[in-house]
Amino acid sequence: MKITKIDIITRPEKLEELKEALNAIGVAGMTVTQVYGCGLSKGHKEVYRGKEVTINLVPKVKVETVVCEVPVEKVLEAAKKSCHTGNLGDGKIFVYPIENAVRIRTGEEGDIAIIDPK
Amino acid sequence: MKITKIDIITRPEKLEELKEALNAIGVAGMTVTQVYGCGLSKGHKEVYRGKEVTINLVPKVKVETVVCEVPVEKVLEAAKKSCHTGNLGDGKIFVYPIENAVRIRTGEEGDIAIIDPK
Amino acid sequence: MKITKIDIITRPEKLEELKEALNAIGVAGMTVTQVYGCGLSKGHKEVYRGKEVTINLVPKVKVETVVCEVPVEKVLEAAKKSCHTGNLGDGKIFVYPIENAVRIRTGEEGDIAIIDPK
Ligand SMILES: Nc1ncnc2c1ncn2[C@@H]1O[C@H](COP(=O)(O)OP(=O)(O)OP(=O)(O)O)[C@@H](O)[C@H]1O
Ligand SMILES: Nc1ncnc2c1ncn2[C@@H]1O[C@H](COP(=O)(O)OP(=O)(O)OP(=O)(O)O)[C@@H](O)[C@H]1O
Ligand SMILES: Nc1ncnc2c1ncn2[C@@H]1O[C@H](COP(=O)(O)OP(=O)(O)OP(=O)(O)O)[C@@H](O)[C@H]1O
Ligand SMILES: [Mg+2]
Ligand SMILES: [Mg+2]
Ligand SMILES: [Mg+2]
Repeated sequence: MKITKIDIITRPEKLEELKEALNAIGVAGMTVTQVYGCGLSKGHKEVYRGKEVTINLVPKVKVETVVCEVPVEKVLEAAKKSCHTGNLGDGKIFVYPIENAVRIRTGEEGDIAIIDPK
Repeated sequence: MKITKIDIITRPEKLEELKEALNAIGVAGMTVTQVYGCGLSKGHKEVYRGKEVTINLVPKVKVETVVCEVPVEKVLEAAKKSCHTGNLGDGKIFVYPIENAVRIRTGEEGDIAIIDPK
Repeated sequence: MKITKIDIITRPEKLEELKEALNAIGVAGMTVTQVYGCGLSKGHKEVYRGKEVTINLVPKVKVETVVCEVPVEKVLEAAKKSCHTGNLGDGKIFVYPIENAVRIRTGEEGDIAIIDPK
């Protein structure tokens, strides 16, 4: 089965909703990093703490999840739905190919390393 | 159009210059993470806060940017130029293939999700 | 020579052992990020600070290393051995293809950017 990594970069206040949305479609694990986003685009004006921010660094979260059984399309739908406000700064999703995965506890490799043990 | 992800790992004090260099070539967004770098190489001695550091963890920044219109080669040039000091520890750039991108605000997928809306 | 990126997500208390294990097989550099792991699986119960944690965020470290001379298989072995406890939460390893690498100090591209200068 094909293994895929998905990065979701969004507003920190959406993390809880995103976690629940991913859980609901059967995503079994994720890794969260505090990051800073930078909109360098000319017209970019995002509101952060009541102020318009231009090229500065705005706190965001990056949620990484590696999936194989759960279809990528379902993850995109869940992330789009839970992270959407309609305003600038809602974030981006990036999808990457992945060659292999290992579960350290058991040494299992490949799709079985990602699939949740029953 | 091909979508590519570029990671630039460099000195924190170079972040401002790097941001401006990327902005100047039309890069529309980036994500910044505080990381720790570890030079494990035998001969590695990097100077950090006036002291020679060997295998310890030295603060670095990781700048991730996903591009499609802006050529990868131009990003490499801009990063090499703005982050270069000539000393050990200037950092590394890594280039990755990417399968898809989504703009959460609009739901757009593919290259259009990366290209700055006019 | 093929260039590969390996992400190792594991317990923070295993970082020192992992660094030494990677050093021993000739890995010349790595980047460390403090992250939060989330086990969303139904049966997931990890012990953190003496308490059973369910879907909450547990501190983890992510170690990224890009290799070309050192075989991926040796990195997986070293990481599995040094990070293994046998308990839930030991972590995951993910292996990614990479298109190019640059050493900022010298401008070198490709495998030579990764291989430790003698
Ligand atoms: N090209 C990019 N590469 C890497 N990260 C990006 C990129 N574009 C946006 N990001 C990350 O996503 C965050 C949110 O971006 P944002 O929603 O503003 O994207 P955008 O392209 O400006 O879309 P919008 O048109 O909705 O503003 C940014 O703060 C940054 O962390
Ligand atoms: N192989 C690698 N994999 C992942 N990250 C790396 C690797 N090599 C270097 N880095 C990251 O880049 C940072 C800067 O590395 P550095 O400039 O010292 O690279 P280097 O290979 O030692 O080059 P130099 O010969 O210029 O010292 C490191 O602190 C680390 O975060
Ligand atoms: N599918 C995944 N995608 C991204 N990160 C993951 C994924 N699964 C686990 N992780 C990361 O790895 C960390 C450790 O996971 P863990 O060892 O609990 O994996 P697991 O699949 O639950 O394995 P185990 O059966 O040993 O519990 C998590 O806290 C999270 O940071
Ligand atoms: Mg924006
Ligand atoms: Mg070095
Ligand atoms: Mg688990």
